[in-house]
Amino acid sequence: MSPETLSVQIDGAVLTATIDAPPMNLMTPELVRDLGQLILQSERDDSLKVLVFRSADPDYFISHVDVTQLRACRQESEKLTGESSLGLLFRHMSASRLVTIAEIEGRVRGVGSEFILACDMRFAALETATFGQFEAAFGVIPGAGGLQHLARLLGRSRALEVMLSAEDYPADLAERYGWINRALPAVQLSGFVRSLAQRIAKFPAAGHVSVKARTNDIELPSADDIRRDSAMFIVDVMKPEVQRRLKGAIDRGFQARDAEMNLAQLLGRTATE
Amino acid sequence: MSPETLSVQIDGAVLTATIDAPPMNLMTPELVRDLGQLILQSERDDSLKVLVFRSADPDYFISHVDVTQLRACRQESEKLTGESSLGLLFRHMSASRLVTIAEIEGRVRGVGSEFILACDMRFAALETATFGQFEAAFGVIPGAGGLQHLARLLGRSRALEVMLSAEDYPADLAERYGWINRALPAVQLSGFVRSLAQRIAKFPAAGHVSVKARTNDIELPSADDIRRDSAMFIVDVMKPEVQRRLKGAIDRGFQARDAEMNLAQLLGRTATE
Amino acid sequence: MSPETLSVQIDGAVLTATIDAPPMNLMTPELVRDLGQLILQSERDDSLKVLVFRSADPDYFISHVDVTQLRACRQESEKLTGESSLGLLFRHMSASRLVTIAEIEGRVRGVGSEFILACDMRFAALETATFGQFEAAFGVIPGAGGLQHLARLLGRSRALEVMLSAEDYPADLAERYGWINRALPAVQLSGFVRSLAQRIAKFPAAGHVSVKARTNDIELPSADDIRRDSAMFIVDVMKPEVQRRLKGAIDRGFQARDAEMNLAQLLGRTATE
Repeated sequence: MSPETLSVQIDGAVLTATIDAPPMNLMTPELVRDLGQLILQSERDDSLKVLVFRSADPDYFISHVDVTQLRACRQESEKLTGESSLGLLFRHMSASRLVTIAEIEGRVRGVGSEFILACDMRFAALETATFGQFEAAFGVIPGAGGLQHLARLLGRSRALEVMLSAEDYPADLAERYGWINRALPAVQLSGFVRSLAQRIAKFPAAGHVSVKARTNDIELPSADDIRRDSAMFIVDVMKPEVQRRLKGAIDRGFQARDAEMNLAQLLGRTATE
Repeated sequence: MSPETLSVQIDGAVLTATIDAPPMNLMTPELVRDLGQLILQSERDDSLKVLVFRSADPDYFISHVDVTQLRACRQESEKLTGESSLGLLFRHMSASRLVTIAEIEGRVRGVGSEFILACDMRFAALETATFGQFEAAFGVIPGAGGLQHLARLLGRSRALEVMLSAEDYPADLAERYGWINRALPAVQLSGFVRSLAQRIAKFPAAGHVSVKARTNDIELPSADDIRRDSAMFIVDVMKPEVQRRLKGAIDRGFQARDAEMNLAQLLGRTATE
Repeated sequence: MSPETLSVQIDGAVLTATIDAPPMNLMTPELVRDLGQLILQSERDDSLKVLVFRSADPDYFISHVDVTQLRACRQESEKLTGESSLGLLFRHMSASRLVTIAEIEGRVRGVGSEFILACDMRFAALETATFGQFEAAFGVIPGAGGLQHLARLLGRSRALEVMLSAEDYPADLAERYGWINRALPAVQLSGFVRSLAQRIAKFPAAGHVSVKARTNDIELPSADDIRRDSAMFIVDVMKPEVQRRLKGAIDRGFQARDAEMNLAQLLGRTATE
């Protein structure tokens, strides 16, 4: 594997993929392709048991989808799984035998949040990690499974708050709401995740498979639910009024690294202008 | 709208309804009628997007149903929705396009808790808000959807604790259990809710509708479940032994403003006497 | 009742069963029999409403199943319920009219965790209670309903973390994750549970029955789900490689009181050796 947007390191049965797609780790077609290929190839490699995802950019884990390249992103997804929904690609990972852990510093929003929600576990830096599921600010639902996970993990009221407010959530609140497993001091985060990943990797693969399968039977959103969200999203996001809102936001700094440092504020302004 | 038990203020697309039904904001037929009409009328008014509910009484948000007027309350509900269950009236609100926020100071118990649980979000004053779902103290279930919401939001064990203990829960514990979204210092509460409501109101109505619809598909209790609770409640509450317990409790201060300041204690005494 | 592994105390409608099966409260056939008989007999005794479970051993509530006596444990379960699954015996308790409360000091792991998860409520000593659901360390799923409860109570990601890591979880983290209702200072624990049990016992039995029935309809794992986990567990645990791992662990201190004081560490070592 020599992916363009990821650097990969293998330590025993643990593969660590560091997302490195400057300037702000947007979910581009290239990142979809690289993440998807990594997942599919790792699944076929019996020497691997655990995948850890981190970011080379301390400010952005994954910012969100590149809204100017939605169709191309979906085409990459279709090449990998036969279906264009990114949510189904992520769900493939959730349903796989691989144990996946997101180690989060910086901002993770939109499809980035949907990606980490599809990981089996999520740990975040208390000081820097920031979470947003902001699609409703543009009048659409999260289209890649995020709504399905948030509703189940946070419950109806907190999931609605998070999505309808399109606010930024700091790591401690994200932990209290159940968006992530735990927030840890940044200085401890990597050590904790490495140790956890290595511990899990020592245990028999058969246990990973059966524990995941039975837990997924209960709590993993169905492919149909994710497929339906995806279909609803793509119809809605292509509407003229949504495209106009996205264009207006881009004019005001959406999809630009500096302006998105405080995206919640930018979205609030966008809506009124 | 000129409701008898509510004062209404409109700021842009946000309507704030202040419950004002002295002496203790009991859920009377008048309050059922006024809340119901407000919801149905607001839903038809496209200039409105968000409803905020608060109380004029710092000690009581909604105390509980007036147990001497149960039938009349249900008749008001039937006039509004065609069905006598208050839970179905509340569920109508949950399923509507309107985004609803409860801003809670003081005590909210019984059907009051069921009403706020049907709101999309709940924020409460850390120092004063108190929560109770005490129907089991009289031998019946919560009849207006509260059991359905509590089981889903708090999980089986905390929901059973809350209902079977008939205890009062302070705001911080209610937050930890997931009964409310968040507890905030009283001094910040109104500002926070106003700002959140205005922010949500800025975003497109289409996003409110689709985010709520898809989330409700997953986590909103079904009308049938609420209908069944309502039917079980009304049969049980009319039993002679339950009516006798209610009468005994009223003799000891139940439904009186002062005595209900510490209702949990009163219920504990009632049961033994 | 004069059980061998329990001491029983009755105070009004509250029965307190203190688990006393030295040296470490392993779930042996005798403890299965005694717990099962206690539950079935208490259910038939209308003078009883609430069961409290505690331990005579400050270090161990229930350590886990005696892996050398799995078949005999299942035979005891079959004598009691007609089915060999311990999870179905525990589920019988969850579905009964009795309100059950676990008061936890010390370690509770494996089938012990599954037993307390089947109790209606769980309160634990902040300083000493420790939780583990470690079956995946041997390559199998929790076989007595624990996976079903954890997935629903903790959500997918925290349930997977807890099971796949096979780690020990302190009481405060167990509370944050929803594994228990609340962690309390050890000095307050008994008083709190006694007071709660007596309060619930004062309220009408009819309320216990209907609140539990309706809540169970929503959140209690189905008998079929638990039966399926049980069947998968027993097939997997009898595989030669799992038996070999268990034997290796026993050689290193598994099932010995001292070594299990830090079981998480022992399991981590076992896996690599």
